[in-house]
Amino acid sequence: METLPKGTVTSPQGFNAGTAACGLKESHKLDLALVVSDRDCAAAGVFTQNQVAAAPVLVSREALSAQRHRIRGLVANAGNANACTGEQGLTAAREMQQLAAGALECGPEQMLVLSTGVIGVQLDLAKVEAGIQAAAAQLSVTGGDAAAQAIMTTDTRPKQLAVEVELPGGPITIGGMAKGSGMIHPNMATVLGVITTDAAVPAGDLRACLSAAVEWSFNRITVDGDTSTNDTVLLLANGASGVSTAEPASLALFNKAIAYVCIQLAQMIVRDDEGASKFVELTVSGTNTEAEALSIAQTIATSSLVKTAIAGGDPNWGRILAAAGRARVCFDQSQMALWICAGEAELQLVRGGTPLNFNEADAELIFAQSELAIRLDLGVGSGVAIVWTCDLTHDYVSINADYRT
Amino acid sequence: METLPKGTVTSPQGFNAGTAACGLKESHKLDLALVVSDRDCAAAGVFTQNQVAAAPVLVSREALSAQRHRIRGLVANAGNANACTGEQGLTAAREMQQLAAGALECGPEQMLVLSTGVIGVQLDLAKVEAGIQAAAAQLSVTGGDAAAQAIMTTDTRPKQLAVEVELPGGPITIGGMAKGSGMIHPNMATVLGVITTDAAVPAGDLRACLSAAVEWSFNRITVDGDTSTNDTVLLLANGASGVSTAEPASLALFNKAIAYVCIQLAQMIVRDDEGASKFVELTVSGTNTEAEALSIAQTIATSSLVKTAIAGGDPNWGRILAAAGRARVCFDQSQMALWICAGEAELQLVRGGTPLNFNEADAELIFAQSELAIRLDLGVGSGVAIVWTCDLTHDYVSINADYRT
Repeated sequence: METLPKGTVTSPQGFNAGTAACGLKESHKLDLALVVSDRDCAAAGVFTQNQVAAAPVLVSREALSAQRHRIRGLVANAGNANACTGEQGLTAAREMQQLAAGALECGPEQMLVLSTGVIGVQLDLAKVEAGIQAAAAQLSVTGGDAAAQAIMTTDTRPKQLAVEVELPGGPITIGGMAKGSGMIHPNMATVLGVITTDAAVPAGDLRACLSAAVEWSFNRITVDGDTSTNDTVLLLANGASGVSTAEPASLALFNKAIAYVCIQLAQMIVRDDEGASKFVELTVSGTNTEAEALSIAQTIATSSLVKTAIAGGDPNWGRILAAAGRARVCFDQSQMALWICAGEAELQLVRGGTPLNFNEADAELIFAQSELAIRLDLGVGSGVAIVWTCDLTHDYVSINADYRT
Repeated sequence: METLPKGTVTSPQGFNAGTAACGLKESHKLDLALVVSDRDCAAAGVFTQNQVAAAPVLVSREALSAQRHRIRGLVANAGNANACTGEQGLTAAREMQQLAAGALECGPEQMLVLSTGVIGVQLDLAKVEAGIQAAAAQLSVTGGDAAAQAIMTTDTRPKQLAVEVELPGGPITIGGMAKGSGMIHPNMATVLGVITTDAAVPAGDLRACLSAAVEWSFNRITVDGDTSTNDTVLLLANGASGVSTAEPASLALFNKAIAYVCIQLAQMIVRDDEGASKFVELTVSGTNTEAEALSIAQTIATSSLVKTAIAGGDPNWGRILAAAGRARVCFDQSQMALWICAGEAELQLVRGGTPLNFNEADAELIFAQSELAIRLDLGVGSGVAIVWTCDLTHDYVSINADYRT
């Protein structure tokens, strides 16, 4: 597997993208994107579990359930989430779908819809229509980078990559873009992800592939099952490479590559978290099951007390142990061990549930780094889970105290 | 029921308190308290569910299980939580218990132990011993106020009250003190509570009374079941008034009064939350069950996005709805209704899951108040729950980024 320089969602064969600044963002930056295949795609999607699912989520779910072998592309906008907008919002999302389908000359249910931005404001369809016309008029194989910009909200940079993978039947390309930024636990901020590939993959295999990949990537930067109103990750495979994943060995390689792309995109989101200054990889091991390890890891990773300590460069390991203790997993505190690492430096802080006589300055030096790793072992079984998170800073509060104004 | 002016834990007959500044707090403020009855008490306790329970929690649990009819009092310290301190910490907590029992001439298991402060540092027993001696030497019926000060950590003010209740058999007094401050969801900060009464109540009734009262008070300012390493609420009844709660009518009045005292103390904690500028009462109604309402209320009340919006005075109702949607409770978003209130002003923002055409300036005016109420109705059943919370400010981050340094 090789990472392509300046890879985007239009790196795979047969994909084009076009964008527009139609005024949904007050900044008048790019805010609408079309990503389109020149032929039908098999497709799969993973959507928010939130009971207050946004209108575009409902519309995309319907389209996938009706046409998951014949998807042509997607229309995405930023600046307005079209969430909590009732029947009017649902009608608007369908209209957005139809406008895109009309511009691209395909059936409405062959188009998927994604939105992100402010909640509870009705979509301005005149702007959306103008944006779709403008974006359709400049569809291009080099449009992927602009598409990644168009879906940004509080993101400070676009998130994208593409890889080439040598399957037994020949090379295929996978491209991906994502937006997201919102906090250490982006369970409350929208994550959008779009993965494209020119491999030929049946829709059933795509669904299993994407579910597994999301579980190991986007779900490891969120609280289990807790998602925003608009979270959506899509995977489109158009077969333009002529290379199929029908062989089990090919499918296994393909699955691995999709997981790699998703993990890269998820980590880009954490690194670009709103107001975050540090990237933290947190590993919990030694539980009876992987689920227990994940539960503990997510509890630590979403603890405001842990996150503020990381922001302050304070190796306050007690907060880490205390957060672990409230994850509703039974363990023996006298078996806990904790390490912190940055680059080559590794320091054990806790053994047998009690602090070692470590050098506080060494610990502070590690916590002063912009990338650090924390490892907690419960000493019971072989369960392991890894999650990625960041710190909680003043900037986070500033950004979120006046997001709408 | 009448609130006593300047009421404390020593307002009920037969209770004395003594305090000392023994150097556990670097500020050299009061950091150790004894609260003692002149006769044996029936007692009950509610303790943290955290797997990493602190040594004093283990010791107090043992004492209550051995001597819940013969408790004489408690020793409490702030500045050091004696948590994550292993066998050495457990030995220290027992030593602290024995030192207090020695000074008061009772059995060790007649003394309860409470600690709060930094995690993972061994207790300095020389300081504790000196503190216990000094506190025991100045036990007094007017010592309650100083005791409430001695258990403070980042609290900005002591939290206490006392009420007199006329039972069928005569008047009784209930006193209470608490410490806690730590965040919008104090599930990660320690809550200590001590309730004293001169009523004569069997230990079994006390336990049921305290469990219910805590559920309606301290548990409504925390995430269900998520507690710090040291959380402890104790209830001691010494019978010095000669008035018993044996009659069902008396017990009902007593239970109600204990719940009232606990709710007052819990609200004092929220009002004094670290860095908080606003007090919010959040009511969720219209669910199938009370448990569902509570789950949704707690998800909203612990949402950093909601809390930062409140800090910023931004009536970002979409975040409230979105938080409700991820509480793992099924509902129909098209039935949601939302109101915000402050004082006499009430404004409905959402009906049928969509925003009303309300005046944004009116909403901002309500969100600008220091005390506000939010009411969300799901439109399904008769489940209701109320929780209290506060906002998430820059000061919160500042306080917690360098708590140890």
